[in-house]
Amino acid sequence: MSNSDYTFNDKVVLPMEKVLKCQKALYMAAGMSEEDATCVAQHLVEADARGVYSHGIQRTPLYFNRFEKGGTNPNARPEIVKKVGATALVDGHNAMGMIAATYGMNLAIDLAKKYGTSAVSITNSNHFGTCAHYVDMAANAGMIGFCWTINCVNIMAPWGGVERQLGNNPFAIGVPCGNKPNVILDMATSVVARGKIVMARKTNASIPEGWALDINGNPTTDPEAAYWGTVLPVGGYKGYGLALMIAIISAILNNSSFGPDMIDLYEDPDKIQNSGHLMQCIDINAIDNLDAFKKRMDEAVDYIKNGKKANGIKEIYVPGEIEANNLKRSIKEGIVYPVEVILENRKLAEKYDVPVEYRL
Amino acid sequence: MSNSDYTFNDKVVLPMEKVLKCQKALYMAAGMSEEDATCVAQHLVEADARGVYSHGIQRTPLYFNRFEKGGTNPNARPEIVKKVGATALVDGHNAMGMIAATYGMNLAIDLAKKYGTSAVSITNSNHFGTCAHYVDMAANAGMIGFCWTINCVNIMAPWGGVERQLGNNPFAIGVPCGNKPNVILDMATSVVARGKIVMARKTNASIPEGWALDINGNPTTDPEAAYWGTVLPVGGYKGYGLALMIAIISAILNNSSFGPDMIDLYEDPDKIQNSGHLMQCIDINAIDNLDAFKKRMDEAVDYIKNGKKANGIKEIYVPGEIEANNLKRSIKEGIVYPVEVILENRKLAEKYDVPVEYRL
Repeated sequence: MSNSDYTFNDKVVLPMEKVLKCQKALYMAAGMSEEDATCVAQHLVEADARGVYSHGIQRTPLYFNRFEKGGTNPNARPEIVKKVGATALVDGHNAMGMIAATYGMNLAIDLAKKYGTSAVSITNSNHFGTCAHYVDMAANAGMIGFCWTINCVNIMAPWGGVERQLGNNPFAIGVPCGNKPNVILDMATSVVARGKIVMARKTNASIPEGWALDINGNPTTDPEAAYWGTVLPVGGYKGYGLALMIAIISAILNNSSFGPDMIDLYEDPDKIQNSGHLMQCIDINAIDNLDAFKKRMDEAVDYIKNGKKANGIKEIYVPGEIEANNLKRSIKEGIVYPVEVILENRKLAEKYDVPVEYRL
Repeated sequence: MSNSDYTFNDKVVLPMEKVLKCQKALYMAAGMSEEDATCVAQHLVEADARGVYSHGIQRTPLYFNRFEKGGTNPNARPEIVKKVGATALVDGHNAMGMIAATYGMNLAIDLAKKYGTSAVSITNSNHFGTCAHYVDMAANAGMIGFCWTINCVNIMAPWGGVERQLGNNPFAIGVPCGNKPNVILDMATSVVARGKIVMARKTNASIPEGWALDINGNPTTDPEAAYWGTVLPVGGYKGYGLALMIAIISAILNNSSFGPDMIDLYEDPDKIQNSGHLMQCIDINAIDNLDAFKKRMDEAVDYIKNGKKANGIKEIYVPGEIEANNLKRSIKEGIVYPVEVILENRKLAEKYDVPVEYRL
């Protein structure tokens, strides 16, 4: 296919395996090891397959720009620099966030197997994709997973302020069920994730009121104005407070970038991010019996879903359920992409001389 | 003073020490040990002194009603029933929540001193006051504290539902600073804590729109209607999702009451609560140097507070700062109480034959 096959606002459906194969080849062309390229490709394509397009392969051109300008090192490997009991401090050595965070969560799972619980603090990392991915790893290991991260650009004002002093720092909590998908809450502390504004900007779609303010503090539905303004914290002062606490436990704890030291993921591709994350696990077997817990979870999900619905509501969902449904459908039917995202990735594959059969 | 000294909507200012002394005597008159009575009195009076009246001594008549009707056991002592590495499961044996939760957080602090981090799961407990109190204990020990609890009555509907299926389950995160008060976020997952509706109902004050729906799902400013209806989750579906996750990690994890098994703290004084909590600590020294962290925290607080303010805003606050200011003022000037709260407590002291000098 050539660019002329598409018009703007076109959609294209691609088999998940094909997108995975092409993304892996692309990241290997950037100099990553096969193992690391697989890790990143799986993360991004899984996000798309779950319907979280803001954190999928639309970010690949952004990540490559950072490789090219020296902001992120595609070859770096994370390393444990301190280990005390059930805790560890990991230096990401400026690797991609997915590499540092996957390493960190695997370590947290291992530590929790030994000590019942764990806390792994990660510094000198980068934007790591979705928090959901990491707590899903924990849940699949029979654990409660917690994942906290500072976001990679200041876009929110403190409550009562007007300046971009904070990220809309997100977090996730995930747990396993028995016969149902893992229950996973992954939320940013703004009304919506900034990635959705970036996505709208890319596809020239307007955004709803209540998402963001422009640079002068006025409400806007223009994604371009929102991009340069501030996003609103969820629940007003509560979302602001939570964003600050997440910055503290993710970044101030281990001396990663915070506040005035933050660079802009989008606008400063040549600058080191020094992003901080925190991963925590609780081994459910340490507290109770895992199978008994899973049975209670299945019952809890049924209880919530069987509640009386408001007028016009067809179904009540538990956190992560819509994404799990999307993933199931994507595996079966392929992933639906906005064509702009595919064209950008194809252009990148051409630039990096990726063999034609590995191009989207 | 007699009841006739006051009219409704009167305020009365009482020295903190006096309220502490009288509350302690009252709980001892109910059969508690001196140590436990001190623990509960300190918790409640501190809440009032911090301006969190919804969780202060206004609840004492409620707690006493539960002692009298058999719902809570004033003499019970919590016990560790399982211990794996840095985790523990504590059975509260139906003690007051403050007793079980203080025991649990002290244990979590001890475990984190040894293992760098910890998770203590508490079952068979009761309403435990404010989450802030427990993470403040952790912060004072040089740790990051996390406290999660299921709330003691179902008052919120799932997103898309209309039934009272969930509590507005709260949580807190607390960290120490150097020269500034601990930074403590304590938030319920409803727009406001239900205690504020209970307080408004007690003082016949109307409530703002956006706090609650009546029993038919309509917005209300009448605290009586709100009391019997549902409270709105903070940030819509995000607050609902967080409330469910908190229920899972606090209560479903250790088989405490959830959903259909919840009793109503206010309406079922004869029934066992079986409330569940989760306490987690991270020893800051395990990850970084505590003093260096405290210095970064002082700088972070200054950075936030020195941000440009919106029109009409005099000061930007960090989480817990307003409460810390209130506490400082209360210690110096006494605690300002609505007279109804004092009269209720005095009546209780009379009923329990507390010596006159130990009555409010």
